[in-house]
Amino acid sequence: MQQFSMVRAIEQTAEGAPLGAEMIAALVSGYTRDDIPDYQMAAWLMAVCWRGLSTDDLTALTKAMAASGDMLDLSDLGRLVADKHSTGGVGDKTTLVVAPIVAACGVPVAKMSGRGLGHTGGTIDKLESIPGFDAKLTVTRFREVLAHCNLVLAGQSANLAPADGKMYALRDVTGTVSSIPLIASSIMSKKLAIGADAILLDVKVGRGAFMRTLPEAHALAEAMVRIGIGAGRRTVAVLSDMDRPLGNAIGNALEVIEAIETLRGGGPDDLRALALHEAALLLVMTEAAPNEAAAAQMVAATLTSGKAFAAFAAVVVAQGGDMRTLEDTSLLPHAPIIETVTAPEDGYIADLDPLIIGRAAMRLGAGRERKEDVIDPAVGLVLRAKPGDHVALGTPLCDIHARTADAAARVRGDILRAYRYQQSPVTVPPLIKEVIGMHASS
Amino acid sequence: MQQFSMVRAIEQTAEGAPLGAEMIAALVSGYTRDDIPDYQMAAWLMAVCWRGLSTDDLTALTKAMAASGDMLDLSDLGRLVADKHSTGGVGDKTTLVVAPIVAACGVPVAKMSGRGLGHTGGTIDKLESIPGFDAKLTVTRFREVLAHCNLVLAGQSANLAPADGKMYALRDVTGTVSSIPLIASSIMSKKLAIGADAILLDVKVGRGAFMRTLPEAHALAEAMVRIGIGAGRRTVAVLSDMDRPLGNAIGNALEVIEAIETLRGGGPDDLRALALHEAALLLVMTEAAPNEAAAAQMVAATLTSGKAFAAFAAVVVAQGGDMRTLEDTSLLPHAPIIETVTAPEDGYIADLDPLIIGRAAMRLGAGRERKEDVIDPAVGLVLRAKPGDHVALGTPLCDIHARTADAAARVRGDILRAYRYQQSPVTVPPLIKEVIGMHASS
Repeated sequence: MQQFSMVRAIEQTAEGAPLGAEMIAALVSGYTRDDIPDYQMAAWLMAVCWRGLSTDDLTALTKAMAASGDMLDLSDLGRLVADKHSTGGVGDKTTLVVAPIVAACGVPVAKMSGRGLGHTGGTIDKLESIPGFDAKLTVTRFREVLAHCNLVLAGQSANLAPADGKMYALRDVTGTVSSIPLIASSIMSKKLAIGADAILLDVKVGRGAFMRTLPEAHALAEAMVRIGIGAGRRTVAVLSDMDRPLGNAIGNALEVIEAIETLRGGGPDDLRALALHEAALLLVMTEAAPNEAAAAQMVAATLTSGKAFAAFAAVVVAQGGDMRTLEDTSLLPHAPIIETVTAPEDGYIADLDPLIIGRAAMRLGAGRERKEDVIDPAVGLVLRAKPGDHVALGTPLCDIHARTADAAARVRGDILRAYRYQQSPVTVPPLIKEVIGMHASS
Repeated sequence: MQQFSMVRAIEQTAEGAPLGAEMIAALVSGYTRDDIPDYQMAAWLMAVCWRGLSTDDLTALTKAMAASGDMLDLSDLGRLVADKHSTGGVGDKTTLVVAPIVAACGVPVAKMSGRGLGHTGGTIDKLESIPGFDAKLTVTRFREVLAHCNLVLAGQSANLAPADGKMYALRDVTGTVSSIPLIASSIMSKKLAIGADAILLDVKVGRGAFMRTLPEAHALAEAMVRIGIGAGRRTVAVLSDMDRPLGNAIGNALEVIEAIETLRGGGPDDLRALALHEAALLLVMTEAAPNEAAAAQMVAATLTSGKAFAAFAAVVVAQGGDMRTLEDTSLLPHAPIIETVTAPEDGYIADLDPLIIGRAAMRLGAGRERKEDVIDPAVGLVLRAKPGDHVALGTPLCDIHARTADAAARVRGDILRAYRYQQSPVTVPPLIKEVIGMHASS
């Protein structure tokens, strides 16, 4: 290759011309080494916001970002390894259900995730509400737990995609956060570094999600699937509804309890349906099942046999968690104040704004507004009526689990405001809007 | 105004939404004060390349850039003051002809210019070929010369638009040089700071110019005129041909000689026609003439009466130049080697590439490839045949004025290559392609 020129790279991207894998690699490694200054990277990132990137350039970018740090090689497991990622939503504890089910079916699940920020909680934050649970695993311990339990649920311990960390910090202060290819490469760079063979992406769409509209969510999902496939990974994206909260519990220990109920065969319908569907997709993707119908049977069996719950319990214990709290969830952290909000009128619930609900839970202490905020594992909300339900004046809508009565009182109005009613019955839109990528027909 | 957020400003511009004058002013002053880092400015500049700027935002940007440094107030002259700017072309010594003519008609002309870079020479570089001429005037001396001679021709001495200097340096390394609104605001910020009431812009278009195509040149001219008018200045842009060199001389002392010939009533047809037209426009713009026809008569009279040449001589002498060199131009620096290139065939000259000619002159030493290069005032080219002319084998095409025989030999091939011939007569396209902005009908 001729000498790399960052100005030339910026100009080419601003003209909509492809750079090719070599220039992209030079750009990412130069930036990671501090050879390329922030101001040139900022101009390039804005040029990407403007023109987008070709599939080849986007794949090359993501691979170069992944290669900027540790790359886990999980091939010694001798099986296709699964990973699952959600773009984040209100009440989204799906990973806590999907991962144990898939592991219980014999497919190794390697999950390494960041923490939550804003009104959508992080998987690790939820797990850390279990007394003793340790998400900070060394890479060696990560491999040990995975080999032993067929499942590991860790925080980001390895030096995963440092180029992404540096680029993300710059995007945050240069108005270049909301570019689809940049979001896609940021997520997928870490997925590629973790080394799973099959990646299931749950792309949330609606008011409670980062992607508000279906076209945006579709574009992000498609970009991520293209990157995954371009990098040689089996990749499927599920577009799922986030125009209402998922399940009933919002808050860390509360969501763990709901996940355990679901793993034991109960749980709310919407959460169960989504988790079972995603788990079945992963079984097909990893060739553990020949098709979705067979996969669905395998998945259902793990719930009735208790194997799914056992897989969850095993990994929690392996990572230091207190087994007794799983068997008796009243031992998990719980809030001193529980206050019930009731319906102010009769009618069908027409709408429940997930953003208002998510922000109310965050204000109770269940989420972080700023990185340095400390989460209260006990607090949150439990919805008792959701869109489609009929309520009468005084029917419970939602339980507020708060640290103080004052804190509960402060979110009460928001919760009432999040609900809308109508007199005629309500049809709830489907939870799964679209599935993109490699998936076998049932 | 609410607290200024640069991230918000970047996002708004990237969405194509206007910022308004207050945000623009905060952006420019924040960057000038180093409160806004280069990486945010780089992202914003690329967002401008992407979305452009509304006329209001562009005018506000240019005014804020002008206000970042010294603003000359020339109102004490009690007359409308003229300024003239060219975007630069090969052989373009028009300013040396237009400014003295306009001054000779009683209109003050305040000209403060940068130096040339690349294949297009700068007005100051040309003037400095006159022994003793000093372009480095203090602001006080600038005003004195202007008051005394009705004309001043200075290098950029005042602290003009430092925001532009800082932004230009950043654009140069972030692939954001070629944006029309950014080019327009860069040029016009300095014009606004100089304080003239009437600004004539000569926008060159063609292979020898920065703007290669008519649509680009038109867009730049229109943007600059909008800025000027938005900032309360009378502003007109002339789009003129730079698909062939202007006049015959290319090189600093050689161009001064040609300008003097033109001021004395001679000179090449194309240079004379363009200079007279531009001078007449400035007389109408400054209300020194009621219309273009009257202005044209006034202009012509300054040539025949000797007043135009006298105005030029007066300002050169006021700025330290040696009067004898103007009266006997053989006393100006001259090259030891003059070699004539002759036509290799019979025919009509169909084309003469100004870029090849300009680069050849630069390689002889007449221009700067890098900022630190030193110019040789004596060297250059004098064209003896131009497009439309008929030549026979051996007819002189061009005289090379070189420092050494080797230097002359090195450009010989280029000059031969710059000419193309055809057997049928050639129609030369019009020199003036369009006039944009406020101009009275004749």
